[in-house]
Amino acid sequence: MEFNARLLDLEAGGKYIVVMGVDDAKKLGVISNDRLMLHTDNSDDVVAILNTAEEFPLGSLGVYKEIGEHLEVSDGTPVQVQPAERPESLNFIRSKIMGEKLMPRQIEAIVADVVERHLSSIELSSFVTALQIHGTSMEEVEALSKSMIKMGKTIDFGKTPICDKHSIGGVPGDKTTMIVVPIIAAAGYTIPKSSSRAITSPAGTADRMEAICPVDLRLDEIIDVVNEVGACIVWGGALDLAPADDLFIQVEYPLSIDPLLLPSIMSKKKAMGSTHVVIDIPTGREAKIKTMEEAQQLAIDFIELGKRLGMKIRCAVTDGEQPIGYAIGPSLEAREALQTLAGSGPPDLVDKATSLAGILLEMVGEEDGKRMAIELLNSGEADKQMRRIIEAQGGDPKVKPEDLIVGGERLDVRAEREGRVLWINNRSIAQIARTVGTPATKCAGIRLGSKLGDEVKEGDVLFSVYADTLRKLEQAGELARDLEPIVVGSYKGENMVMMRISEATTPGAERYILDR
Amino acid sequence: MEFNARLLDLEAGGKYIVVMGVDDAKKLGVISNDRLMLHTDNSDDVVAILNTAEEFPLGSLGVYKEIGEHLEVSDGTPVQVQPAERPESLNFIRSKIMGEKLMPRQIEAIVADVVERHLSSIELSSFVTALQIHGTSMEEVEALSKSMIKMGKTIDFGKTPICDKHSIGGVPGDKTTMIVVPIIAAAGYTIPKSSSRAITSPAGTADRMEAICPVDLRLDEIIDVVNEVGACIVWGGALDLAPADDLFIQVEYPLSIDPLLLPSIMSKKKAMGSTHVVIDIPTGREAKIKTMEEAQQLAIDFIELGKRLGMKIRCAVTDGEQPIGYAIGPSLEAREALQTLAGSGPPDLVDKATSLAGILLEMVGEEDGKRMAIELLNSGEADKQMRRIIEAQGGDPKVKPEDLIVGGERLDVRAEREGRVLWINNRSIAQIARTVGTPATKCAGIRLGSKLGDEVKEGDVLFSVYADTLRKLEQAGELARDLEPIVVGSYKGENMVMMRISEATTPGAERYILDR
Repeated sequence: MEFNARLLDLEAGGKYIVVMGVDDAKKLGVISNDRLMLHTDNSDDVVAILNTAEEFPLGSLGVYKEIGEHLEVSDGTPVQVQPAERPESLNFIRSKIMGEKLMPRQIEAIVADVVERHLSSIELSSFVTALQIHGTSMEEVEALSKSMIKMGKTIDFGKTPICDKHSIGGVPGDKTTMIVVPIIAAAGYTIPKSSSRAITSPAGTADRMEAICPVDLRLDEIIDVVNEVGACIVWGGALDLAPADDLFIQVEYPLSIDPLLLPSIMSKKKAMGSTHVVIDIPTGREAKIKTMEEAQQLAIDFIELGKRLGMKIRCAVTDGEQPIGYAIGPSLEAREALQTLAGSGPPDLVDKATSLAGILLEMVGEEDGKRMAIELLNSGEADKQMRRIIEAQGGDPKVKPEDLIVGGERLDVRAEREGRVLWINNRSIAQIARTVGTPATKCAGIRLGSKLGDEVKEGDVLFSVYADTLRKLEQAGELARDLEPIVVGSYKGENMVMMRISEATTPGAERYILDR
Repeated sequence: MEFNARLLDLEAGGKYIVVMGVDDAKKLGVISNDRLMLHTDNSDDVVAILNTAEEFPLGSLGVYKEIGEHLEVSDGTPVQVQPAERPESLNFIRSKIMGEKLMPRQIEAIVADVVERHLSSIELSSFVTALQIHGTSMEEVEALSKSMIKMGKTIDFGKTPICDKHSIGGVPGDKTTMIVVPIIAAAGYTIPKSSSRAITSPAGTADRMEAICPVDLRLDEIIDVVNEVGACIVWGGALDLAPADDLFIQVEYPLSIDPLLLPSIMSKKKAMGSTHVVIDIPTGREAKIKTMEEAQQLAIDFIELGKRLGMKIRCAVTDGEQPIGYAIGPSLEAREALQTLAGSGPPDLVDKATSLAGILLEMVGEEDGKRMAIELLNSGEADKQMRRIIEAQGGDPKVKPEDLIVGGERLDVRAEREGRVLWINNRSIAQIARTVGTPATKCAGIRLGSKLGDEVKEGDVLFSVYADTLRKLEQAGELARDLEPIVVGSYKGENMVMMRISEATTPGAERYILDR
């Protein structure tokens, strides 16, 4: 059937979508979400997904920007339209729904159709849900990783080893990467670190680093920086490494599920050319990974998947019961990272960073890696190296911690009694930080006044909230009173009830699981 | 944040969707598929789902028709926008993904949010997938049914019993309803039958009946027709009975899954006011229900759900190994139905219709229902009753079978050898019928020349294909040669291999499961 193109001044998120009236669709024997095969006199066949509209001019084909540009049509251009075959990958998705294990070629077909935008959100969502419910075998995880790598760009730095570090996340204030990367580079190894921005947590490494210098580098710029100073800390989101992952995250995010954790992380590492990777698995009752058993199983899976992809992986299960260091929020955390590199860091952050750097140094052949890492930090070598990275990425290498601006409005939340800090709720801390606008508002955040086990007197500051407007600060203050994220008691065990559950309590979904 | 409305001349399939640029979204701290709370100076708060666009004018809020009409905005109207809370129902969907059983209040919240368009396609698809994989308990099925009824309109005919008949479907040519309804009405009982149109099968009951008279009646018209003649055969799709079901079908259809079969059917029956319902479960290797055990389990579930909803249900497992009667396609089937009412119907159709009508008659207190049904058919009472229904719905009561026009182009597919018909593939028959344009092209279809067990000579017509254009007929002919839907052999067992499967064979998804 011939239609006349009608350009819609709208994007479809990269998808090829066209619109026609329900009566035209009926004549064509198709319904909404069916696929159509389109071509013009000047174009090849291309498949698009149909949206129908009750009212749409008869004989018109509404064309979203992406497909309009592909077909090179203008208003009124004749377009030939016929029903298209369902992609074979839909049958594979259905097999997964029915509980079957998928073969590598089936997974590759699905991932290819995801990247080529042949699958609708409905189909993608169903696939991700089926993966979450049925789980994935190691063979499937391997095939998913390899397909995701194959469908994107890869970097070759032309040398080996290429070191890397990754955290599963879920603990606020974790600026460890900003200490590990300069230590490894100061030891003479190459460590091109690509990081994510936070989606729901107070800050991702890309957000923290961005408080100091640009992180939106192009692929060729990254290669230049790494060749020059041996390291970088950049945003990986626009590099087109494993682009399937970004499309999967779009549907995982609203559902708060994360079945593609392993292939997602590992495909990006492999695409970055990494050969030796240390993976941090923070574990705590309010962290992403709750139990030691869960952490151990995940670590084993990472190591096995690494073998299959030709990467050496080591994992560290770390304490994730409270925030790392004292600062939460992009600028506050960047400031704390610079202070740590300058020699006055909080002990938990220093220990975590030098331990992880130490593991990585031993993986590439050094002896007593932790001691080496501590020396590189204490000697100021790591600090010097960080400033080289900052300069190479286009920032000011002379930046001082106090140059980083934090929110002008401050609220101090104080202890109402004398005692010990017994419990810090990560999730509540993240929620309060979000209320003052992190990660978008760089200067906003939280600074803890005390940490687990610290003795406090009545009136001591438990934590301070920073905001750019008084209104946000007031909202955060209200929330802080409701949530009581830091609990003080006389002795461990005084207050054993951690949460009350009634019939009407709704289990809270993990909102930060997708901050990779 | 304040935005200026920019009207998009586009519908969003009933959903409330707005568009903004990614930079605006970042400032607001939201991403694509998040929910926004909107209001203008003149409107209450309303929740919409966000789609982001790479290029979209800063400060503009793209507004699809549905939300634009709700807010009563024109181009440039200021709209206040802030991030909205996630609906609680999302947590319940997540609970179902995690394998928990849902409580009635949780299911009600989900169904309400579906009908109010608060859930995105991604979320709806994930819910439906989780229901398919984990299954549903009878308590969940009951709650789904009751919620679906509650969220739509219901009809009260002010009398009892109200009879009804439903087929699970999946067998081509099943025009049984058009015989059962007039028999029951001729016996003096009320039977207001609402039917669906075919989505993927060659014809639904609404398509067949539409070949004879209008079926798009409004609710008040239906009540008039039923009060006048005791019965109707109408399309149920626009009556707003259990509207949630239509929204579920939109996501079930592309996935070819059907986890809401029971609540979908039963909520519509209950909304129609039905008190006594006979349900036909055709069973065959290429039908929707494959085995006797599966059929029996489904029947038990229907009966139990009926009890919980206050309806008396009886089920009949029928033979679904081949099409019912000889005709497939709206007009061809309507013609065969009229011939059957006139006394010259194919034996399988006559037996099936009088058996189902007999069960229904016994359910409302008659003795020897089948005999009564046969008498009402043979005496011409059912035919007279059908013509009253046709007239009441606005058709010609004097319509003759030969008045129904069938496609002018015909292709006869002939037996290439002598023997017996050993196998008729329902799915291939449906596929060939679709190639000639059924159900949209009313005059197109297939007429079988012989049925299972019939003796044929070389050159006998196995089946004829009818089309309105020679081009479609040629395509159907090619497909018929490929599929060989009717297999002839010397004796049962001569040709034991029914299908060959290689490593590269893809399991075919059931495309007609959603024709309810």
